[in-house]
Amino acid sequence: MLRYDTPLRDMQFVLHELLQTEAVLGALPGLGGWDSSTLDQTLETAGRFACGELLPLRASGDREGCRIEDGRVKTPAGFAQSYARYVAAGWPALAADSRYGGQDAPELLHSAVSEILNACNPGWTMFPGTAHGAYQCLLAHGSQAQRDAYLPRIVSGEWTATMCLTEPHCGSDLGLLRTRAEPASDGSWRISGAKIFISGGEHDLAPNIVHLVLARLPGAPAGVGGISLFVVPRFLPAADGGLATVPNGMVATAVEHKMGLRGSATCAMNFDGSTGWLVGQPHQGLRNMFVMINASRLGVGAQSVGMGQAAYGQSVAYARERLQMRASGGARRPDLPADPIVEHADVRRMLLTQKAYVEAGRMLVYWLALALDVQARATDPVEREAAADRLSLLTPVAKGFLSEKCAVVADLAIQVHGGHGYVCDNGVEQIVRDLRAAQLYEGTTGVQARDLIVRKIMNDGGRKFRLLLGQIRRFAEAAREEDGMAVFCAALLAHADDIQQLAAEIAEAAAHEPDAVGAAGCDFLCAFGHLVCAWLFAQAAQVAQRRLAQGADDPFYAAKLATAQFYVARLLPEADFRCRIARTEMHSLSRLPQERLFV
Amino acid sequence: MLRYDTPLRDMQFVLHELLQTEAVLGALPGLGGWDSSTLDQTLETAGRFACGELLPLRASGDREGCRIEDGRVKTPAGFAQSYARYVAAGWPALAADSRYGGQDAPELLHSAVSEILNACNPGWTMFPGTAHGAYQCLLAHGSQAQRDAYLPRIVSGEWTATMCLTEPHCGSDLGLLRTRAEPASDGSWRISGAKIFISGGEHDLAPNIVHLVLARLPGAPAGVGGISLFVVPRFLPAADGGLATVPNGMVATAVEHKMGLRGSATCAMNFDGSTGWLVGQPHQGLRNMFVMINASRLGVGAQSVGMGQAAYGQSVAYARERLQMRASGGARRPDLPADPIVEHADVRRMLLTQKAYVEAGRMLVYWLALALDVQARATDPVEREAAADRLSLLTPVAKGFLSEKCAVVADLAIQVHGGHGYVCDNGVEQIVRDLRAAQLYEGTTGVQARDLIVRKIMNDGGRKFRLLLGQIRRFAEAAREEDGMAVFCAALLAHADDIQQLAAEIAEAAAHEPDAVGAAGCDFLCAFGHLVCAWLFAQAAQVAQRRLAQGADDPFYAAKLATAQFYVARLLPEADFRCRIARTEMHSLSRLPQERLFV
Repeated sequence: MLRYDTPLRDMQFVLHELLQTEAVLGALPGLGGWDSSTLDQTLETAGRFACGELLPLRASGDREGCRIEDGRVKTPAGFAQSYARYVAAGWPALAADSRYGGQDAPELLHSAVSEILNACNPGWTMFPGTAHGAYQCLLAHGSQAQRDAYLPRIVSGEWTATMCLTEPHCGSDLGLLRTRAEPASDGSWRISGAKIFISGGEHDLAPNIVHLVLARLPGAPAGVGGISLFVVPRFLPAADGGLATVPNGMVATAVEHKMGLRGSATCAMNFDGSTGWLVGQPHQGLRNMFVMINASRLGVGAQSVGMGQAAYGQSVAYARERLQMRASGGARRPDLPADPIVEHADVRRMLLTQKAYVEAGRMLVYWLALALDVQARATDPVEREAAADRLSLLTPVAKGFLSEKCAVVADLAIQVHGGHGYVCDNGVEQIVRDLRAAQLYEGTTGVQARDLIVRKIMNDGGRKFRLLLGQIRRFAEAAREEDGMAVFCAALLAHADDIQQLAAEIAEAAAHEPDAVGAAGCDFLCAFGHLVCAWLFAQAAQVAQRRLAQGADDPFYAAKLATAQFYVARLLPEADFRCRIARTEMHSLSRLPQERLFV
Repeated sequence: MLRYDTPLRDMQFVLHELLQTEAVLGALPGLGGWDSSTLDQTLETAGRFACGELLPLRASGDREGCRIEDGRVKTPAGFAQSYARYVAAGWPALAADSRYGGQDAPELLHSAVSEILNACNPGWTMFPGTAHGAYQCLLAHGSQAQRDAYLPRIVSGEWTATMCLTEPHCGSDLGLLRTRAEPASDGSWRISGAKIFISGGEHDLAPNIVHLVLARLPGAPAGVGGISLFVVPRFLPAADGGLATVPNGMVATAVEHKMGLRGSATCAMNFDGSTGWLVGQPHQGLRNMFVMINASRLGVGAQSVGMGQAAYGQSVAYARERLQMRASGGARRPDLPADPIVEHADVRRMLLTQKAYVEAGRMLVYWLALALDVQARATDPVEREAAADRLSLLTPVAKGFLSEKCAVVADLAIQVHGGHGYVCDNGVEQIVRDLRAAQLYEGTTGVQARDLIVRKIMNDGGRKFRLLLGQIRRFAEAAREEDGMAVFCAALLAHADDIQQLAAEIAEAAAHEPDAVGAAGCDFLCAFGHLVCAWLFAQAAQVAQRRLAQGADDPFYAAKLATAQFYVARLLPEADFRCRIARTEMHSLSRLPQERLFV
């Protein structure tokens, strides 16, 4: 079975030493109570819950999967019981509004807890994870009556919730969406259409499911400007106003057989005149749904870091006990028949790559999750806007870059295990399979790259982008004279210049070459992601070096410094390579028509 | 279901136009009959067999897997019937010696056929694939009596064969091997021990299995110099000399549940006093087994290319029919609700990456497979030695580089399919799972990198390595003035210099820094692999350009040229990046003791 230890020490480092969370949260109305020790205790409790309840169901949930029985979806053995205990312990309410029964915790804490849950059982975690996204969307756009009707039950976990966007013929291109909404005489709507890839679309964890469904009103404009959002519960209240027990004209027609996340019920749904209520204004559905999509994108970052941590932790544990060959410099453990493979340089290279990406990802996700809280609650509008800018610019990076790099982390876990990583027993191949979805859902990496370049950089003339680069440069200028910081600061300044230049080149090329963004997008996103992570690691190195200079007696700091140095020496150079590729003649991909190119 | 068209046109290009196979084989004693049209017909027939028999069992074999029933291993439905038809059609005999019933075909043809079989059903292909390796080992090292007893039955396919190396506590480090061989009075040996990861160790395709087992004689020296090789059949002949029906003291104790290749029976075997016969000299077992291991390593290259081709072909087909969004430059198919995604630059980038790696891999594998034939048969010893040098140097590259890059190709197939790539129906996620083993078995990428640097480059003072670089440089010098070749030749010359320099730096560092090879190995292997593939693509581009200049009316050549240009512009630059990483301070990975680094 996969081993997992909640990485409390590193979480605390990011929260308390890097982000100074207590001070930031303390200044936000309503979050002052979430001091360091409360955060720590919550994470520790979450770790105990996840390790005790979810980790034991990780492999069995994967083997068993979800299935349809008598028209209902059955989740793997133990899932429903664990969900009941999750609800009983109040976890769904953690980062929810107290007006609806929530505990008013910061989104930051929700992200960190989500990392832990996903590390232990990502398939299971899809159920509450999707519900939290739907909660945010209804809170932001639902009428007061809709909030009152649904939010308390979603917050308590009594009901779950989903988002229903994708249809068989449209995923990235929601403009093609066909699901229809016909008006009923009572002000409600009748929703009809086929949806696919609905996580938790049907299951046996809860007695009701609140679906948020995108559909078109009669005569709606074509494309994305004609899509409306509806709330469509699985069961309607009985005529006497009693329990919600009246089936609402929908059925899960299939549960997908997937590469991974097999514990999650990914349903094909058919809505046939289901009763729904409009959420927000007509034709504003996609815009309103984007609250949820953006939160979900950052959630994919947290999920990726969680699974990456699980892969890294298991790899280190295995590399410490697996004995093969002697270290190159001579036996390190002459008492054993061979040395632990952690002593081999090539294995260390893999373990440090894992450690560096996971820790970089944790810094990025927590920093952005903290921005969610600042954006929502800061009293100073300038502060709120700065947080919103940061989130807007970096959400596609957290989603696109971290899902790709944590996939590398998971893949390396197999490689560290050798042939033993390929068999299911050690649990690492499941991480690769589970994590592979992260590069696909909530928009593929290519979709994130286009979002980053077109919507987040080009659309405001590069304002947000330059603000961030300015922040990075100011850090580097200020820190460069500090002991040991020169190597970080020089790299940051050089890469910031190169990436700013590249963004300008892409924008210029895009003016006359339609394929410019598509041709350079994923490489640009990767290079930019590296710069941001290197900057976070430079900050972490600065903290660590100061602690060491103060005589701190904790190996954590020396390890953090070594990891930061490894990142800059061995991982960051990929940014140069990606920038170079992104600069290759952008027309080259379309010089030949497709039928004469792919022969 | 996965779509697969045998890439006959590209195979023919490599065989006839690039490698001039007919001329090369025509000069080799015994292979003159294998002219171009015979090769073409055989590949076409193999394609029909694989598409008709094996492709339909690919997904079902994966779902069903192998299992133990009543102490015997049962393969998935249809596997045994397909194997019987494979045998009836004479395929196992293709590249086998006619003295034992073989058809004396070139190893080159065996590799190309293996590519096709692996594309259609890699799990199934593991059974005959392993048998061919064992055939080669027995042919090279068995006594005449052993050859007479086993080879005709292995060549006909009546019996299969395996190699039994790995034990639970030793994989890469076979020096730790514990299986024992005790002498019996009749000159045979009693073999006892536990082996794991035995492909086809037990199954229901054939009535007998010939195991080649590594074990230690009593009092054998410790380490790899004390390992001997034995032939140990699953069943012994009856006392009256009749059919082999007497069980030989072995049992498959488990069939591994694996990430992929689930149609292949990966067995844990227990030998308990099984009767075996020494093959070759005592204590020379590992050296003798290496005949098989090297052939298998090149076979992993062919296998990787086959699966890569399947992934690429399916991706192109899907990208041509999936409609999402309009092309950036305006609608390409205004008659449809959206454009096929093949029109999007980011999708083309992925498809071209797949095409380039697969075609590079095909050139490398076929070129090396041809070297197998030249090495074995050329009348000129200088020619034989040159082929042997090439094989020795480049086998770890074909295995290590192609298994890694074709994994990228398979992974991109999921990405091209978006969410539809994550569900099992399209068949591409299975390719990722099946292909993941290629980076592990027959020595991980790290093991290949060490083999390349220490045994293949440093051990002969860089002689073979310099010979190859000289060949690359001579090509580049000669071709640089030719129309359109300057960009290829300049890149080859620059990279050849850089990689030669890096090899010298690693050798120098290794003299005083024990970790130098391990720290730089995988990056060096990758950079070197890129150089070799770029050289092969430069040759392909030269052929294509000459054909185009002659007015050839075949879109194949323009597409080949565009692919070669893509390789040099977008993929080859990774070599610079890898060289740079390989040069980072090699001590940095071991500065901290492991217990203070991975905290």
